[in-house]
Order: sequence, then C-alpha cells, then structure tokens
Amino acid sequence: MPEISLSAKSVPPSSIRKFMPFIDLARKSGKKVYPLHIGQPDLKSPQEYFDALRHYEWKEDLKEGFTESTVAYAKSGGLDAYRTALTEYYALYDIILKPDNIIITMGGSEALEMAFKIVADPGEKIVTPEPFFLAYFSRVQSESRKLLPITTSIDDNFQLKDFKPKLEDIIRKEKGVKAILINSPNNPTGAVYDLEQMKAVADCAKEHNLFVISDEVYREICFGCEPHISAMHFPGLEDNVIMVDSDSKRYNLCGARLGRIVSKNPKVMNAAMKLAQIRLSVSTTEQLGGMAVLGNKHYIQSVKEEYLKRRNVAREVISGGEGIKFSRPDGAFYMMVDLGNHLNGEKVDAEEFAWYMLQEFDKDGKTTSSAPAGEFYVNKKLGKSQVRLAFVINEDALRDACSVFLEGIYSFKEWKKAHPENGYIKACDALEILR
Amino acid sequence: MPEISLSAKSVPPSSIRKFMPFIDLARKSGKKVYPLHIGQPDLKSPQEYFDALRHYEWKEDLKEGFTESTVAYAKSGGLDAYRTALTEYYALYDIILKPDNIIITMGGSEALEMAFKIVADPGEKIVTPEPFFLAYFSRVQSESRKLLPITTSIDDNFQLKDFKPKLEDIIRKEKGVKAILINSPNNPTGAVYDLEQMKAVADCAKEHNLFVISDEVYREICFGCEPHISAMHFPGLEDNVIMVDSDSKRYNLCGARLGRIVSKNPKVMNAAMKLAQIRLSVSTTEQLGGMAVLGNKHYIQSVKEEYLKRRNVAREVISGGEGIKFSRPDGAFYMMVDLGNHLNGEKVDAEEFAWYMLQEFDKDGKTTSSAPAGEFYVNKKLGKSQVRLAFVINEDALRDACSVFLEGIYSFKEWKKAHPENGYIKACDALEILR
Repeated sequence: MPEISLSAKSVPPSSIRKFMPFIDLARKSGKKVYPLHIGQPDLKSPQEYFDALRHYEWKEDLKEGFTESTVAYAKSGGLDAYRTALTEYYALYDIILKPDNIIITMGGSEALEMAFKIVADPGEKIVTPEPFFLAYFSRVQSESRKLLPITTSIDDNFQLKDFKPKLEDIIRKEKGVKAILINSPNNPTGAVYDLEQMKAVADCAKEHNLFVISDEVYREICFGCEPHISAMHFPGLEDNVIMVDSDSKRYNLCGARLGRIVSKNPKVMNAAMKLAQIRLSVSTTEQLGGMAVLGNKHYIQSVKEEYLKRRNVAREVISGGEGIKFSRPDGAFYMMVDLGNHLNGEKVDAEEFAWYMLQEFDKDGKTTSSAPAGEFYVNKKLGKSQVRLAFVINEDALRDACSVFLEGIYSFKEWKKAHPENGYIKACDALEILR
Repeated sequence: MPEISLSAKSVPPSSIRKFMPFIDLARKSGKKVYPLHIGQPDLKSPQEYFDALRHYEWKEDLKEGFTESTVAYAKSGGLDAYRTALTEYYALYDIILKPDNIIITMGGSEALEMAFKIVADPGEKIVTPEPFFLAYFSRVQSESRKLLPITTSIDDNFQLKDFKPKLEDIIRKEKGVKAILINSPNNPTGAVYDLEQMKAVADCAKEHNLFVISDEVYREICFGCEPHISAMHFPGLEDNVIMVDSDSKRYNLCGARLGRIVSKNPKVMNAAMKLAQIRLSVSTTEQLGGMAVLGNKHYIQSVKEEYLKRRNVAREVISGGEGIKFSRPDGAFYMMVDLGNHLNGEKVDAEEFAWYMLQEFDKDGKTTSSAPAGEFYVNKKLGKSQVRLAFVINEDALRDACSVFLEGIYSFKEWKKAHPENGYIKACDALEILR
C-alpha cells in the first residue's frame, strides 16, 4: 500500500467536528443536546437568498455569452456585478474599494488558504494570537507553512497585551516570519481589538515589512465597541493588508460558502487571481444568492441585537459558576470557559469533559455539546482545561443550556473521583472513532 | 512593500482564461466570437436542478438539528443522503462503493487539490501524460509539488505508448515519485485509454507502489469505446486508486462546483476527511441540486449523443484543412490542432494566433476563440503551435466556426509575412494585460 504524505498525516482532525459521533449517539439515546460546540447559527437566513434561487435567472451582465438555462462557470474572480455590489457594502464601514480589490472565494476558508500561500512559502511562518480559529492551524500546517503563536490569556480577556515586544522577540528568534494573522472580533474568545491594539499590529507590520492577514468575518457583531476597527483603515498599510471575509455569520449563510479575499496590493491580487483561476470559479448560484441579500439593510442589525441578548444571558448564568473562569465577549458569539481543577489539583481535561457531557451526563434528559479548546492553541497544554461555547440557540434555550453546562462541570468533577481513567479515550477506542 | 511568496509568483496565469480581455474587446467591436476556448458547455442544465432550488427545503435527514430556513453547514464529507445516492450512480458503471468512500468537494478542482496533498509532500513528484488539463500543472506547482510529464504525441492520437518503460525511466532518474495522474477521456486531447493502456498504468502503480489519481469527469462521453475503463475496476489496486470526479460536464453544472474524491484506501479517506474539515463544508444548496439531478436517468445519454454529432462535424470540417494536424477524439469534447509552420519553416505561435483571431481577423464579422496549448505541457515548446478547440456550440454553429477557424489559420500565416513582430505580446503590453 502506498503511504500518504507526511503533511496529510500531520493535519489534526477538527476538535469541533470530531465529537459529532458522540452527539449523534446522545441524540439517538433520547437526550436533548443543546449544540454549543459549533459556530453554526440557528437564525433564519435572509428571505432574499431563497427568493433569488426561486427566481433563478441570468441577468444580461452575468451571462458571459451563455444560454439562460445553463449553470455556467462564473468568472474566476467572481461575478462582476457581485464584486461591484460588495464595494458598496464595504463603503458602509469606511472601507473604500474597487471591484478589482475583491476576489470571491469558497467561504472565508478559501480566502485564508489563498492568503497563506501568497504570503509564505513552505517552511515560512505566520504569527497569530492564540487561542485562534481552529482552521488557522490545520490550514497553515496542511500547506507546510508554520503557525507561531503569541499567547493571550483568559485573565486579560484575551486582549493583545505587549504585542510589539512579543512579536519582536519571535522575529529575533525565528527566520522566515512573513505575516501577522489577526481576527477581531475573535473566534473563539469574543475579544475585540481596540484602536490602540490594532495600531500596534499595524505599526509592527510596517516596521518589519510583514503582511497583515485580517479575518473580519464578525465585523458587525460588536457590543459597545463600535465602530469596528478594520486593518483596512490604516493609511500607509495598503500594501500590507489582506482582508479575509465571509457571509456565513452576518447573513447566516454558513452553507452557502461565500467569502472573499480583499487587498489593495496589486501583486497580492494578481497572485490571488491566478490561484482563483486554478479552481476555475465559485458557485454561480451561490453568488446570485449572496448578491441578493446585500439589498437587505436591516438584517445584520437584527442579527447583532440577537447576539447581544444571548451574550448577556450567557454571561449572567456562567458568572454564577464556581471554580471556573470565563471570557467576557465584546463581539462575535463565542465565550471561552476554563473548567478549572479537580479536587486533586489536576486540570480538568476539556476533551474528556465534552465527551462526558454527551455520553454520561444529563439533567432532566438535557445536556450540552462544547468545543474543547486544546487545538485552538499551538501550546496545546494551555487550552487543555478550556472549552468554547457558541451562542447559537435562542435566549431561553441558552439560559437553560448554560445552567445545564454548569451542573455538568460539577457533576464531571464528582464523577472523576471514581473514574481516574480517561473515559473519552476509552470510548473512542471502543467505538473505533478517530480522535 | 512585503514580497509575495515564490510559490505564489510561480503560478502561471490560465492560458484559457487570459484571453478573456481580448474576447471582450472583440465582442465590443461587434464581432461574433464562437467560444471554442473553454470547456463551458452550452447545453441546458437538468430541470431537476432548478426545481430543487425552487422548492428549497431541508429534508429531515439533512437537517442535522437546525431549523428549516437556515442555510446551514453540511457535514464536511457531504450530505449523507447525497453520498448514498452517488453510490447508486457509480454502481451503474460497475464501480461499487460505500458512502464512506466518497467525500463531496468544491468541484473536481478541490478533489485534485486534496489528492495531490495526500499523495505527495512539497518537493515530491507526480507523473502525468502531457498534454494535460491545465490546472494539473498550476495546482501541483502552487502546492510546491512537481509535475513530471510523459509526452504523448498528436501523431499517436495522444495514446499512452510505451508507458511502462517511460515511467520506469523517470523513476530511475528522479527521487520522490509518488503517483501517476491520468485522465481518460482526456482533456485536452479527447484520447480514451483502452483496457491495455489502463492495465499498463495499473501494473506500474502496483509494481512501484504508486498512487493512481484518476480523473474521470468525462466518463460517459465516449464514442464507440464503451464501456469506459475506470481505474476503480482493477482488483488488487483498491489501496492505490484515488478517483477524482465532477458533475460539471456530464450534467452541465460547471457553475455548481460539485465534485468528489473517491477511494477505497481508508488512510486516504481519513486524510481527505481532515482536509475537508479544514474548509468546513461544500455548499449545502448545491448538494441539494446535485442530488436532484441524479434522478434524471436519460439526461447523460442525450449529452453524449449531442457531443458525438459535434465531434463528427468538427472532424469533417477540420480534416479539410491544409498544413495542419489534428487529434481524432474518442471521448470528451475537445480536439487538439497543430497549426503547423509558417512559410519560413518556423512553427506557428499558437498564442499569437489566438490573439490574431480575436483582434485582427474576421470572416463576415465572425471569428473563433481557442486555447493555446503551450501550458498544457511541461515542455512548453511541444505545445507552442497547438491549440485546443472545445465543442461547446451547436452542430450548425460548430460547422461554421470550424471553417472560420481554418480560414483564420491561412489568413494568419499570410499576415505574418508582413508582421514579423509578435502582435500578441505587443497588444498585451499596450493594454497592460497579464500574459
């Protein structure tokens, strides 16, 4: 049997998705599982999306010479009309672009992939605050690049403290650092970087001639720290910034896979266009849907208001927990919780906890799923006792889910006294589930 | 300004797509351009696709617990129901699969990307017959792998001659050869490999412990050489074969971006699943559309019949040309044409010809676009005088287009006598168009 590549072997399984089999088992056993593990919002997608699909038609400027009833390739960079419509969307946030500064991608995910390839060759390095969005690590690693962390702490609410000296320390020690990767509002922490923090990133990039890859998919979901500071706002940084964006969260179109890579650096956009040509195009159908939702000006505001309510409920309930720490999200719809220690002083294993909640625990037939945070860190030990909660159920359900979650923590710590062996590992082995 | 990576710089622009600006200019000047440059069929997509979008709804088994009106992430490997439905499709071609052998991808393009990453680490090598589908080279190169060619010739109708000794010669000379990449029916040549040729590939793979990446997107478009021989048909080769597939051509859904990676090797599928998790999922909407078209059993047969007619028309007209050679396609919907020499004995520059047809030539206000073949070869000189024609217009139009194309060749050779300078390079420079 031929051997698969080392780079393919070294890609970690998704810690968010690898609990799926246990979620399925829990549901089959009749438990109600509040799904707090994945950033898959429950909110209704804009009606304009469904209407666009219902009245599928080629507008004259989209046709590119083909007949009305063929689902043809779009241009590699995206439909012209869509790219133009997006410039109007960005202008609302003081991000002034030309259509050529935007290439439509298959979700924010492909935009990240392109950005990583454009800034770094195999073996070269990208610095990012940890904890980070899981795919940053697996994507960079699968591309044979290296992700270097600047650790942020739950005690500082995951803000960027002393960013400049920490970055410069890394640059002194490591060769081939090419870019800083940031995400504000942040997944998984909910942290939002203020002007001062963003300026520190911008200054470092300028001074050390680095790219800034700025993932701004949660732009509108900020609570009391508006207007959102974009990396695109800094004059003189135009050649350094590559913005990554997606409609998944703000329009509840996770399944539409609509994103884009944005830059004013012509060499970056030239390279992005060539990478876009390799995969030919992004779904024409989805682009028509994505273009249609841009017309709904009130939708995003209602999304933001809903998440503010949920954030407040989660904070209220979780703050009643004992022996735990948690982040105070100023944006996005996530909260990090440190599960603390067992009686013997050992840190709680968040993976075992997540499994325990699904297989061993319930409160009146209810439980929660959560995302263990170990893989949100390069230094895996740092996140060992942390989980991420996503606010993707309504206010009332979330209130109940958070209290079930807290009870689960106490119950797990109790259960562990009699179960020293790691139940999660045992269960995976028994079921031949990939860990 | 920070510098972009060497690997991003080394990605070639698409030779198929880089003539777009000249096509636009020709159309704006009032010319009718027969589009023979791109494999974008003009045929009507199946009505089932549009119906599925019109009646968008979550079936119970697709919901994964979310509400009806949210366009939610699909599972990373694809919708379970879709993967199951695809096993029935493959069974029609004696390819017996379980749903777990299939992962849905963003077009055949992403399946290729995954396959290349899975079989080879950066610096390692994949062998393929040249000329090849353009994206093979740019994709492998952008992933910092290397594509090694086994040259096939228009004089042999691009069949695999002496494959084994040629491959073994490469293996002797080169380190790190991990896979053979084949595509039958072939883009750009129309070649179909018979049982003997496929067996040579299979034997080599087995003997030298190589993967076989088999791109079978044109499976049904074979003329007189049915049934199609799949790499999946060879007993004992289950662990070696990775099949790449797509609905773009057989269902005229190029813009839907629906493909898959298929293998019976559990390590390959495990790695593919982890790569799939990184980019979260493929469009849920498109998967619903793709699942719906599988129900239309007659559609593909009508597609095949249409291409057979077109192939016959193109062959009839082109065979009347003087001073040129052409391939005799047994499948797919492409034909390679070697434009021959100028009076001075120099080979015709196919790029300059393609430009000339758009900017300088017309016959009664009509002209053709074509795809210069230089970039379909690692040995670029081999394809210098060749173009690929795609049969993506109806029979009558194709008859006219082929005769316009032939006249264009004679006219270009005449024009060159008075224009020794390369008109294409000059025009690109004048318009600041990327070459």
